[in-house]
Amino acid sequence: KINGERLWDSLMEMAKIGPGVAGGNNRQTLTDEDAEGRALFRDWCEAAGCTMGVDSMGNMFAQRAGTDPDALPVYVGSHLDTQPTGGKYDGVLGVLGGLELVRTLNDLDVKTKHPIVVTNWTNEEGTRYAPAMLASGVFAGLHEESWAKDRVDSDGKRFGDELKRIGWEGDEPVGQRKMHAFFELHIEQGPILEAEGKDIGIVTHGQGLWWLEVTLTGKDAHTGSTPMNMRVNAGLGMARITELVHSIAMDAQPDAVGAIGQANVYPNSRNVIPGKAVFTIDFRSPDLEKLDGMRARLEAEAPKIAEDLGLGISIEPVGHFDPVTFDEGCVGALRDAADRLGYSHRDIVSGAGHDACWMNRVAPTAMVMCPCVDGLSHNEAEDISKEWAAAGADVLLHAVVETAVI
Amino acid sequence: KINGERLWDSLMEMAKIGPGVAGGNNRQTLTDEDAEGRALFRDWCEAAGCTMGVDSMGNMFAQRAGTDPDALPVYVGSHLDTQPTGGKYDGVLGVLGGLELVRTLNDLDVKTKHPIVVTNWTNEEGTRYAPAMLASGVFAGLHEESWAKDRVDSDGKRFGDELKRIGWEGDEPVGQRKMHAFFELHIEQGPILEAEGKDIGIVTHGQGLWWLEVTLTGKDAHTGSTPMNMRVNAGLGMARITELVHSIAMDAQPDAVGAIGQANVYPNSRNVIPGKAVFTIDFRSPDLEKLDGMRARLEAEAPKIAEDLGLGISIEPVGHFDPVTFDEGCVGALRDAADRLGYSHRDIVSGAGHDACWMNRVAPTAMVMCPCVDGLSHNEAEDISKEWAAAGADVLLHAVVETAVI
Ligand SMILES: NC(=O)NCCC(=O)O
Ligand SMILES: NC(=O)NCCC(=O)O
Repeated sequence: KINGERLWDSLMEMAKIGPGVAGGNNRQTLTDEDAEGRALFRDWCEAAGCTMGVDSMGNMFAQRAGTDPDALPVYVGSHLDTQPTGGKYDGVLGVLGGLELVRTLNDLDVKTKHPIVVTNWTNEEGTRYAPAMLASGVFAGLHEESWAKDRVDSDGKRFGDELKRIGWEGDEPVGQRKMHAFFELHIEQGPILEAEGKDIGIVTHGQGLWWLEVTLTGKDAHTGSTPMNMRVNAGLGMARITELVHSIAMDAQPDAVGAIGQANVYPNSRNVIPGKAVFTIDFRSPDLEKLDGMRARLEAEAPKIAEDLGLGISIEPVGHFDPVTFDEGCVGALRDAADRLGYSHRDIVSGAGHDACWMNRVAPTAMVMCPCVDGLSHNEAEDISKEWAAAGADVLLHAVVETAVI
Repeated sequence: KINGERLWDSLMEMAKIGPGVAGGNNRQTLTDEDAEGRALFRDWCEAAGCTMGVDSMGNMFAQRAGTDPDALPVYVGSHLDTQPTGGKYDGVLGVLGGLELVRTLNDLDVKTKHPIVVTNWTNEEGTRYAPAMLASGVFAGLHEESWAKDRVDSDGKRFGDELKRIGWEGDEPVGQRKMHAFFELHIEQGPILEAEGKDIGIVTHGQGLWWLEVTLTGKDAHTGSTPMNMRVNAGLGMARITELVHSIAMDAQPDAVGAIGQANVYPNSRNVIPGKAVFTIDFRSPDLEKLDGMRARLEAEAPKIAEDLGLGISIEPVGHFDPVTFDEGCVGALRDAADRLGYSHRDIVSGAGHDACWMNRVAPTAMVMCPCVDGLSHNEAEDISKEWAAAGADVLLHAVVETAVI
């Protein structure tokens, strides 16, 4: 079993970097705080005897040597970046759980045939730079590196420039590493495990996702002196499409969600009818047909709403993945580990996207989840117990070791 | 008649300060650009032989001497501040039209019994600091000066500090000046005069206004892993209240308007259900009962929308004035002037608030309007013709002189 206290201490230590405003974290990708978190992780890994590799997307790879020079490494890990008002565990648990696994093997002086590599993937959250899981996506061949580096944040800062600025552009080419398997530990970010009193979720599938960015173009005009029938109100259009997104998701129940995350009107002045609105839509479902159906309905109906109001509209897809089915062998290894350790568990579908969803394309992959309080995530109040964290890391340890010894 | 070319040249010269991004202006109150515009206006006024007074709210008063030392001055003017994406004429025409009137009287060597004072009122627009017409409101005794100086902008900067910073806090106490009358020339900011081919609008009334600021409190949560029935989505609440505001205004037709100008969700992240939304409502009507009825309906129905979604709600009034009836004598002077000059005219209700609405409380007051293209204002594309501007300033000149000679 891993050392639950040590894992927890490391989680608390990392959470000191980029503190939020309400007890959580704001350690967004490619900020100074991200750089500080990376440096701490590197120091810890090196202290645990690992060698650190960094690729040109900033992905970090801390390798614990194996006994067979020809054996491909087993990879574990997740991400250290957070939402602007994020929690202390989303992503971090998976990275530091991987580190704890290495520390435990060191303590027990266990050698594995396959090397073990703990990863920190750059920009998993996707808030500052869409799409999410950007750097693992480049690693897995989903995106061109040059395209990824040209992503800009809302201040117009390029991903590539910011990666250089914080000093974490490595020299290793992206995606050249071959994996024996990939495992990711993550908090559930949903309410199911806690509600059912399960220690562990074995992730068999992941929801697919469509991210769309909508721009409505109307006409700035005076709120007082412009008659109602002369208005071309982009804010009203945004409101109607927000309601449409909600209806589409409700009509697709169960197993589908939809919401608007970013919403901006321009010029955003009290006495100006908004002449422009830019907002983002997030649709998800584990069912591919449903997922594509939600997007199709939005693309059919939103333009009618715009037309009714005299608005111009553009709808750009800015992120996408199909629903994921994880590797049976890896899933089985996790399930066996949970059984062996006596943890209660159930199979579960991941509601969120994860780096593991991309790794699944290039290596046998699976995920293990621990509960989180009230299913709350992407919120500074995100919380888990020390025992939940330890149980998740235990299952990870056993599955990884089982996979790495043979 | 005034010198239309000179008036136009001055308008174009002022428009060079704080250029916008699309041909208009961004010269918001208490910015460096505002300071620059004020300095240019002061230099012009002093060159025209006026003495400049500045009060502790930054209101500027350029006085042309009269022949009777005991006669109260006739005041004219408007504001030089603009919207973030504002036009070149909103407010500016009224200030520079007043200056042109002084220059014309100088050219003709006309003396008036009453002094004439051209004013530039601070923060008429109300975008950076709510409410609108803030400094003329302090002058007229509507607001406490200390309260006004404690207004903060969205970056948390105090009005009082910014006024000091730009160097335009004068030493004259606010509101001590007594006025014989007040006249304001302004562009219509609506479509009526142009549509009817009238040169001049004689403003008999002004619409009343309620500005409300709504805060909805929900729960930040993951857009992917949070089931639809567990969401407390402040963005959806904002959308529904945006629609409600529109319905309330449509149900109050004709003679009523309503819209949302500022709309912000938090944390404004693609994959976070907004846990908070803050937005502003602008309701107006020339009919007091209707105006108050719109606010009352909002205050009755918006909390139900919030409750349905499990959201907390607060609704704060941040700006208000009752419908205004201007002084019959001043209105008559403007109407007579238009008749005498042979300009076509009609009586009109001002859809926007103006400094004249506050002056009306402390002095006989009226307004004159010229058309604007497509009724467009609070938009960088705001436009008027040189002839419209000159006609408006002519009417102002004649009404002011008529009032100032006796
Ligand atoms: N796990 C997680 O929150 N990932 C971010 C991408 C997503 O929104 O699913
Ligand atoms: N004239 C003008 O646009 N004033 C600003 C206050 C208002 O919104 O009416």
